[in-house]
Amino acid sequence: MGKKFRETHTIPFYECDAKRRLTIPTLIKLAVSCSTVQSEQLGVSEEDVEKLGLGWIITHYEITISRLPEQGETVTVQTEAESYNKFFCYRNFWIFDESGAECVFIESVFALMDFETRKIASVRDEVLAPFESEKIKKIKRPTPLLPFEKATESKDYRVRFYDLDANQHVNNAVYFSWLFDVLDRSFLEEHVPEKIVLNFNKEVRYGEMVVSEYELVEEVEFLATKHQVNSQDQLSCEATIYWQK
Amino acid sequence: MGKKFRETHTIPFYECDAKRRLTIPTLIKLAVSCSTVQSEQLGVSEEDVEKLGLGWIITHYEITISRLPEQGETVTVQTEAESYNKFFCYRNFWIFDESGAECVFIESVFALMDFETRKIASVRDEVLAPFESEKIKKIKRPTPLLPFEKATESKDYRVRFYDLDANQHVNNAVYFSWLFDVLDRSFLEEHVPEKIVLNFNKEVRYGEMVVSEYELVEEVEFLATKHQVNSQDQLSCEATIYWQK
Repeated sequence: MGKKFRETHTIPFYECDAKRRLTIPTLIKLAVSCSTVQSEQLGVSEEDVEKLGLGWIITHYEITISRLPEQGETVTVQTEAESYNKFFCYRNFWIFDESGAECVFIESVFALMDFETRKIASVRDEVLAPFESEKIKKIKRPTPLLPFEKATESKDYRVRFYDLDANQHVNNAVYFSWLFDVLDRSFLEEHVPEKIVLNFNKEVRYGEMVVSEYELVEEVEFLATKHQVNSQDQLSCEATIYWQK
Repeated sequence: MGKKFRETHTIPFYECDAKRRLTIPTLIKLAVSCSTVQSEQLGVSEEDVEKLGLGWIITHYEITISRLPEQGETVTVQTEAESYNKFFCYRNFWIFDESGAECVFIESVFALMDFETRKIASVRDEVLAPFESEKIKKIKRPTPLLPFEKATESKDYRVRFYDLDANQHVNNAVYFSWLFDVLDRSFLEEHVPEKIVLNFNKEVRYGEMVVSEYELVEEVEFLATKHQVNSQDQLSCEATIYWQK
């Protein structure tokens, strides 16, 4: 069990979609922003980690949505760096509404990248110590994705200047806008995601073109979309989104 | 003199660019959000105006930037619906930093659109009364734009689902991302705008492709970029941005 940290946030209209529901990219931004503030308060800010020649990257998300908060609601965002092994850190996020009900639960996997080699570095105990995360031996197996077969539709996106954050690469929330935007407007207006499983495979850089593809799967038991984002013919990110039926 | 309204806001990392400065689209979102909250508190929310078959549109911005606020700063956003005539409402916005210094001053022109005819409707006194705006005869002449001659560069953008807001059209802040993104990354990293003059000419709808073009003007006295955004071969928005030298 790591130290828990929480912040409150009132959702302005500009963080919402055309249906006044919190957008998924903003949901991710709120979560990661909360962990950034916790890290600063514990004296292991991004700048502190940079001084070691390292930077945080996110490799996996598993997002369970009970209800998307709406414009004007004041939510509590909570995070906890739960545990870590030699290479991966397991961090959880929660979004609660004013009644204390859980709207969103996010499990994520973070790793440290060595800026020089651009490869994953082993986790340093001193970076993790302030979070009081449990050190474990096990490497957790993420929930598998549904296999991608044949694209129902695809759209191209050019990386924009405002997609970059202070790490000089595409902010991880932007991938969610590529994943969702490729879907039809009417589908997005009529459906709410209930579970998103996502793997990041490769960084995308400024000016690159990405291709976002999806495949619709409609079964008796579930409605899902399977996603791939490719850049320069290399898989950058893949995901499965399960939708409320 | 209208009623003034102010809110404070702490700038999270995700509202900033790669240089940790507040992005221009977020600057606009913060301003308009502040006027939305004031309108709600005065009992003339967007929903109330909608019931009259009307909706607010913005036709002109003139933005003077002394300093762009940075990540982590707590700013005060202030607005005042200063005056109005038969067709136009003149609303000002300010962003102050913690020391009370003015970072940004925005003059804007709002109008009411009739949803049925899609044309500008005359301003209703009952909609404006709660703001205590001064009724004037004069139609103010906006600062002229530098004439656009020949594009230095152009980029295409497809309207995305998350570009739409609850009014079901492209949020006005999105135009600023098209205006800025067409510029070179190195130019954007090295320069800060000091004045932006912008006219909106025509709505852009979901799924349309827009072409954002700019022309660089380097004079002894000033450095400026002139901008046009076209959609379906019609001028949607034009602007002049003056940059700190």
